[in-house]
Amino acid sequence: MKVSIVGITGYSGLELVKILNNHKKVELVSIHATKEVGRRLSDVYPYLAGVCDLKIEDFDAQEIIEKADLVFFATPSGVASSLAEEFVQADFPIIDLSGDHRLPADVYQEWYKKSPAKKMILNKFTYALSEYTDVKGKKFIANPGCYATATELALIPLVAAGLIETDSIIVDAKSGLTGAGKALSESSHFVNVHDNYMTYKLNHHQHIPEIVQTLQAFDADMPEIQFSTSLLPVNRGIMATVYCKLKKDVAVSDIASAFAKAYDDKPFVRVQENLPELHNVIGSNFTDIGFAYNEKTNVMTVISVIDNLLKGASGQAVQNLNLMQGWDETEGLHMTPSYL
Amino acid sequence: MKVSIVGITGYSGLELVKILNNHKKVELVSIHATKEVGRRLSDVYPYLAGVCDLKIEDFDAQEIIEKADLVFFATPSGVASSLAEEFVQADFPIIDLSGDHRLPADVYQEWYKKSPAKKMILNKFTYALSEYTDVKGKKFIANPGCYATATELALIPLVAAGLIETDSIIVDAKSGLTGAGKALSESSHFVNVHDNYMTYKLNHHQHIPEIVQTLQAFDADMPEIQFSTSLLPVNRGIMATVYCKLKKDVAVSDIASAFAKAYDDKPFVRVQENLPELHNVIGSNFTDIGFAYNEKTNVMTVISVIDNLLKGASGQAVQNLNLMQGWDETEGLHMTPSYL
Amino acid sequence: MKVSIVGITGYSGLELVKILNNHKKVELVSIHATKEVGRRLSDVYPYLAGVCDLKIEDFDAQEIIEKADLVFFATPSGVASSLAEEFVQADFPIIDLSGDHRLPADVYQEWYKKSPAKKMILNKFTYALSEYTDVKGKKFIANPGCYATATELALIPLVAAGLIETDSIIVDAKSGLTGAGKALSESSHFVNVHDNYMTYKLNHHQHIPEIVQTLQAFDADMPEIQFSTSLLPVNRGIMATVYCKLKKDVAVSDIASAFAKAYDDKPFVRVQENLPELHNVIGSNFTDIGFAYNEKTNVMTVISVIDNLLKGASGQAVQNLNLMQGWDETEGLHMTPSYL
Amino acid sequence: MKVSIVGITGYSGLELVKILNNHKKVELVSIHATKEVGRRLSDVYPYLAGVCDLKIEDFDAQEIIEKADLVFFATPSGVASSLAEEFVQADFPIIDLSGDHRLPADVYQEWYKKSPAKKMILNKFTYALSEYTDVKGKKFIANPGCYATATELALIPLVAAGLIETDSIIVDAKSGLTGAGKALSESSHFVNVHDNYMTYKLNHHQHIPEIVQTLQAFDADMPEIQFSTSLLPVNRGIMATVYCKLKKDVAVSDIASAFAKAYDDKPFVRVQENLPELHNVIGSNFTDIGFAYNEKTNVMTVISVIDNLLKGASGQAVQNLNLMQGWDETEGLHMTPSYL
Repeated sequence: MKVSIVGITGYSGLELVKILNNHKKVELVSIHATKEVGRRLSDVYPYLAGVCDLKIEDFDAQEIIEKADLVFFATPSGVASSLAEEFVQADFPIIDLSGDHRLPADVYQEWYKKSPAKKMILNKFTYALSEYTDVKGKKFIANPGCYATATELALIPLVAAGLIETDSIIVDAKSGLTGAGKALSESSHFVNVHDNYMTYKLNHHQHIPEIVQTLQAFDADMPEIQFSTSLLPVNRGIMATVYCKLKKDVAVSDIASAFAKAYDDKPFVRVQENLPELHNVIGSNFTDIGFAYNEKTNVMTVISVIDNLLKGASGQAVQNLNLMQGWDETEGLHMTPSYL
Repeated sequence: MKVSIVGITGYSGLELVKILNNHKKVELVSIHATKEVGRRLSDVYPYLAGVCDLKIEDFDAQEIIEKADLVFFATPSGVASSLAEEFVQADFPIIDLSGDHRLPADVYQEWYKKSPAKKMILNKFTYALSEYTDVKGKKFIANPGCYATATELALIPLVAAGLIETDSIIVDAKSGLTGAGKALSESSHFVNVHDNYMTYKLNHHQHIPEIVQTLQAFDADMPEIQFSTSLLPVNRGIMATVYCKLKKDVAVSDIASAFAKAYDDKPFVRVQENLPELHNVIGSNFTDIGFAYNEKTNVMTVISVIDNLLKGASGQAVQNLNLMQGWDETEGLHMTPSYL
Repeated sequence: MKVSIVGITGYSGLELVKILNNHKKVELVSIHATKEVGRRLSDVYPYLAGVCDLKIEDFDAQEIIEKADLVFFATPSGVASSLAEEFVQADFPIIDLSGDHRLPADVYQEWYKKSPAKKMILNKFTYALSEYTDVKGKKFIANPGCYATATELALIPLVAAGLIETDSIIVDAKSGLTGAGKALSESSHFVNVHDNYMTYKLNHHQHIPEIVQTLQAFDADMPEIQFSTSLLPVNRGIMATVYCKLKKDVAVSDIASAFAKAYDDKPFVRVQENLPELHNVIGSNFTDIGFAYNEKTNVMTVISVIDNLLKGASGQAVQNLNLMQGWDETEGLHMTPSYL
Repeated sequence: MKVSIVGITGYSGLELVKILNNHKKVELVSIHATKEVGRRLSDVYPYLAGVCDLKIEDFDAQEIIEKADLVFFATPSGVASSLAEEFVQADFPIIDLSGDHRLPADVYQEWYKKSPAKKMILNKFTYALSEYTDVKGKKFIANPGCYATATELALIPLVAAGLIETDSIIVDAKSGLTGAGKALSESSHFVNVHDNYMTYKLNHHQHIPEIVQTLQAFDADMPEIQFSTSLLPVNRGIMATVYCKLKKDVAVSDIASAFAKAYDDKPFVRVQENLPELHNVIGSNFTDIGFAYNEKTNVMTVISVIDNLLKGASGQAVQNLNLMQGWDETEGLHMTPSYL
């Protein structure tokens, strides 16, 4: 299968290159960006010398449609919505890693402060959290957000089984800097991040409606959730710390059973006996989940960790591709966590 | 005034040296430890060359009583409880930075898993959160814990004014590595901390009963609180992120008023318009507090940041000394946050 | 004495504020910048709340001349050269922290690629490495560069005493990110610095001619030196590692004597028995110097560490001010290294 | 092919597990250590859940000989020398990642301060820098040290071609903390490493004789070299910065030709146009080399970067295995640098 990547110079585009380089069923045939056009990717990024020596090309939908069988959009929000239409009309498969095709138009506009995609385009897309969405044969995939992935995988088993008081949910999520992308800003300057920890977009992060919408599919009465996001002084990784009260008569063993039932046959979710640490998943497509109950306060703490660029973006995109095609779900994704 | 420090080679002992070096009313006359006895402090720690060239001495209560006017205990928990008695019997002033004299004996034993101090000794000590405790003329001070300081300063104004649902309180606190002390362990090895983030002692941290006990002095019906502690890959700093639901009819302006009333005349607590960042207080004795309300969930988020070694330990100890003596509260504590 | 700072929003301007806040003989009366004009400094930088609440003003030479007794230029290179003339003509004292008045016009132009100051202005300035230059009564001070300070303090005693083969000198210097200033660039983005180490401006760093010029004052035959600069993933600190061959019949004890003679009476240079570590000086105005000889290769390694923003910029600027005025050299500079 | 690993709980043992997990021709059949015996590796290291669930066994040479076809020693220095004999006598293949079989007995004893292996055992081993040693069919491999690998790959082409003044060589090498291993010590405590930079074992690092011995094979007159090692506050990576003077009439193009000739057909050495950065190789088996010449000082600076745990240890060990067996040199080693 031949694929193209649009938005190659962003972090998730670069990670896609690495994954696809070890994927047996996929060949990367073209890479596109608005910057550095005409240069070899390995000249711009010498760490890719010998890994990907393709030249960066301008975006050209027709050329991609002729050359490839599927396109990945690894673009900032607001870009894919304007470029996807031509592919959709040609019935040409898309996996969009951005937030442009995850939400209804009005919700998107409210949270992203950008013009939404057309409704007829949005309707074609399937929001695909790999562990829960059947994408076999689908053509247009909205790949989940990084914070959303970590949080949804932690909460769905509990919400679906009706084990927790949904109005008590509080999520304190933390991310490394790659989550904020490559843009230069005060808040990405080394001196402002190193030896610091800061909370941002409190109550306003654009992944909030995505999480609520997903959970509502499992519990129609699901209310708004309290969700905070902070910047860790590391490059990669998200930890979502979820606090919630158990419903009456729910035992800790019910929680354990719900997680086991949800993930025992899922290759990329590892339910842990102890609380997972961030470095246990970095560099891999794994989600590690652990939990602990406090009898004194009736609060269950669930901790979920992912690599924001892999399970939170490019890894899950390839996992979705594998599932769309009916291939082995793990193909190309055998990266062991770096840990050290 | 002449003072001695017991436990000089620990982090809070070393920070006391730095503070006292610029304190106009205090002279450091002796420093004590069980290791490196006989060596100059500046030979063991070359960064102190020219700052403190005293020799490290064995502990000797009588010698301290003869030589000094007050002793700081900067020892690990379980040490001060066994050494303090001789000073108490001699009515010789103590500021204990450890947890040994903060809690009732049975609570101490349950949470610290160590033998408690004798009750007649414990009864002599005053737990002194500088902004709330009148220590003028007191002789025996139990200096608060680092997590406890950050959390109590965030919560007391709200609890005291009855503005929040106390059974909804969830504290997600994070600390740099100096909070864990100098002991060598897997969890303090550089490779296990760098590029990592981990939650530890969940529901079991020994500062929990200290916080609850302090809050109960402001609201007798205060229940247990949900409290988590995690390790940030930085040397210094604590952020306590406090989530709580507002009582009916409480407005955000009531919260603002409560904080203003509590801290407008306090030199070391700065109520901020925006959410405070960790690096805004590192290297100083300040506590910065900010808050934001979510109308959709009725959750108030309060963020409180301190330098765990200063306001969370040695800085507050000197602040308490100043208040005990009736000196200017800020003497010796004019350190500006390092920020950069 | 009343002083103004031009370039307040840069790192060295901000550090000056912190130092002057604890300086007994100096009052900061105005702060100037091109950005954020009209806002309180503590609104832009909340960490300074209660430390400096002055409003940022536009640059206005006449106003400074009327209001203050001396002006610090903490501006990027190329700015002070164009603004200094008005002060010089008014015989109004300047301490320039930038590189604009350190080099002859032609050398400046070659290395800084900018228009130099006028020669008649340059002639008025004295390059002032505090430990070597007599600035008592001087009015126009060119404060040394950060790399230059660390390197010159390591080499002058050896060059002045003729102990080393000057054509064998190789300096491998490393700096934290604050050395590169606040400008946003790919190379200051957190993700590109963290977990990385890179060499930059190899053979082209603008401090090279400054170092050579200074050393030539002690040895007229001093040739060019090999000098490399790299970025450490830390905020602060420079280590200059100097390699050089000893002249025939020079003993290690001669090296030790040269350093002792040079620095025994200097309060801010500490010659160490062991090799100094970076964190031993961060947060202070100290320079720590240590050395070790290799008999097999006849190479002497000298290591010199400073805080680039203090001894390498704002600290030395205040040290020079103290010396100009005949005050205690250490006034305002009693900061102990943070170490932890 | 079936292999065993002795010393599984050390960093290089753990990295071998990751590499072999993706190696098509090798099956890991047993793992051995002195600690945690009887536990699953993935219970001790949850990041390996689903990657390696073997149980850790006591060391037992006979069992390994029966079960496997080759053994990796990933043990601290001083261990393999005492355990290897039984395998050698059984003519059972060994790849030793430690320093025990790299040096003549007397040199080993002088630099490692430990008892050396027996000479008859030492004589059986081949020191194997993959790019230079023909190991096809060899049975006993001494895998090079991490600093040695980075330095030798930078210097051999220049020394072999007689292009540089060998008595002018100065190597300033820096390593991340994994290079120091898992042992708990003051110097591996997070607080002592973070925001610090320190030089250690100056003139005494045990890789010095290994480097000199290797270079002498290319130039019998090779003298001692000046070599320093410092700790970078990162987990992984070594940069060797090599300074040397060019011989008369040697041009920069001669240097470029020497590198091209040496490495154009080597899959894991990438000669770069610009100076390589540390993060360009982390997570991979690549060595990136770049260089720049200073006409004013006649000094060539060569920079070589590797991942100390991969090309500097476990990666090269598998590369050597591939070469011994006549397999594709890159099998199992297709890891792209993490970069982000």
